[in-house]
Amino acid sequence: MTDATFAQPIREHLDRFNRTFARQMRSAVPLLNLVVRYLLRSRGKQLRPTLVFLSAGAAGGITDRTSIGAAMVELLHTATLVHDDVVDQAPVRRGLASINALWKNKVAVLMGDYLLARGLLLAVEHEEFEFLRITADAVRRMSEGELLQVQNFRKRRTDEGTYLRIIADKTASLIATCCQIGAVSAGADPAVCQLLGAFGERVGMAFQIRDDVLDYTSCSAILGKPAAHDIREGKITLPLLRALANAPAGQATQIRQLLRSTHRNGSVERIVAFVVDYGGIESAMATADTLVREAIALLEQLPDSEYRAMLAAFAQYTIERSK
Amino acid sequence: MTDATFAQPIREHLDRFNRTFARQMRSAVPLLNLVVRYLLRSRGKQLRPTLVFLSAGAAGGITDRTSIGAAMVELLHTATLVHDDVVDQAPVRRGLASINALWKNKVAVLMGDYLLARGLLLAVEHEEFEFLRITADAVRRMSEGELLQVQNFRKRRTDEGTYLRIIADKTASLIATCCQIGAVSAGADPAVCQLLGAFGERVGMAFQIRDDVLDYTSCSAILGKPAAHDIREGKITLPLLRALANAPAGQATQIRQLLRSTHRNGSVERIVAFVVDYGGIESAMATADTLVREAIALLEQLPDSEYRAMLAAFAQYTIERSK
Repeated sequence: MTDATFAQPIREHLDRFNRTFARQMRSAVPLLNLVVRYLLRSRGKQLRPTLVFLSAGAAGGITDRTSIGAAMVELLHTATLVHDDVVDQAPVRRGLASINALWKNKVAVLMGDYLLARGLLLAVEHEEFEFLRITADAVRRMSEGELLQVQNFRKRRTDEGTYLRIIADKTASLIATCCQIGAVSAGADPAVCQLLGAFGERVGMAFQIRDDVLDYTSCSAILGKPAAHDIREGKITLPLLRALANAPAGQATQIRQLLRSTHRNGSVERIVAFVVDYGGIESAMATADTLVREAIALLEQLPDSEYRAMLAAFAQYTIERSK
Repeated sequence: MTDATFAQPIREHLDRFNRTFARQMRSAVPLLNLVVRYLLRSRGKQLRPTLVFLSAGAAGGITDRTSIGAAMVELLHTATLVHDDVVDQAPVRRGLASINALWKNKVAVLMGDYLLARGLLLAVEHEEFEFLRITADAVRRMSEGELLQVQNFRKRRTDEGTYLRIIADKTASLIATCCQIGAVSAGADPAVCQLLGAFGERVGMAFQIRDDVLDYTSCSAILGKPAAHDIREGKITLPLLRALANAPAGQATQIRQLLRSTHRNGSVERIVAFVVDYGGIESAMATADTLVREAIALLEQLPDSEYRAMLAAFAQYTIERSK
């Protein structure tokens, strides 16, 4: 199953959406048009608009409101990516140089604010009050989640409760927003909107856990060693937390000390080996798997449809993907 | 007349507002509380909430909705200040070290996004759809204005039309928003809301022109020379544009060339002298004065009140202040 497969039942909607979106983004400021054109060219898999359309389909039917919701989440997501580039000082995004590297922090921050404002204005123009409520809350959760992660990074300490809260806020909130907005746009009952929101929340958490596992298991193309960016950056994620819980106390203490000296030769490799040896990978994936099972079980309360089937396939994909 | 004088008719409202605001800002993330507490301690003259309350008073009467509007603009303004700190890499804001210097870009960008989201959520919670429309449009204009300025900075060229558009978008839009939201919160007619918006737009532009003039006329405390930050940063503002228009063509061309080499010894001083010699200061101030006259004339369409009087006094102050 490839990424594009999920979009299959809604391909036409997505194509029309993309044409409208490019037109809506036109601005009187030439620099803005240049940056927007660059962003549109380098756009990703469009998982978020796809989820909006699929959720609308599964919740009763795609309407004109669905495209507005899809445009909102796409703008919001792009705004957070542009701001993340400043935050992470990322030189590359989706294989292309980041906006930050090309136009510096100044343009990246302003551009993110602009995209956020455009997204909100879209909802305001169409009087989509409920969309606004859902997305503004997601923006709050995303920034809170990221800030909580910064704070824990400083202390080099995270417990599992904090970890789960961070990934729920920083990642799952936007996925949940996509599903919820899709359902709202279909005119679904509040119970159905909530159900799809809960589906998205679980899938989003599984998605992030899989990301965190891949950071341990996928090898850097150049060195053939695990990427382990998270450890290098002092981020403690689920595989490590589980290994620390499984290992004898003495070993765990040693690893906690190593975490403070990841700049030293061999430290990162020792931590990765520890996580593998003490079953951190399997244990984290078991949790992701449970979340996906729960998410798919929620879907079964909805009538059967090709949209519902693709939502279930997407849920499954989040934990099976290898990148 | 001091800054605090404007707030005199609404002092009680403002005090109550400040107490509520601090409470509303509490978050479950300790780092956020720390940063928010820091921001509250270093808050400025609160001109923007003051304008919201005065406009509401002048437009018919302060209501519960007025405090919500004031909180929204305060959050929005603070968000833009925090983001400006990243953008300008400013080490100091209001005499204290900037959030950026203290917590790095990462926290500053996220914090700005968080404050923006909180502001929008406040309106959503109270179903203040009209507030949302006005503020989302202001956010769009502010980022567009800043981006237009970045773009013109690159070209080291600005004509007067572009300059006026930049200051309208980046500065006047938020002042206009304060006045308009105040009027809306008083339940005023659309015509009155528009009138107060137009008042704020003119006052905001005069405010920025005065800022740009002060950059030429106020002396740095240490060197006793004009600050001239704008020239050093390649920003071409109204005093220089007017001097270039007044001067003989040959002189103007020489100065345009100097603008490309402001790093050279003596260049900045020569440009400042040119602006003074060719009446750039007086000419720019005459425009600011006209804007303030127009703004005060608009107010005369409203019934007389202490609020209206303070709005007029504020308009006058924007061009008389020396810092």
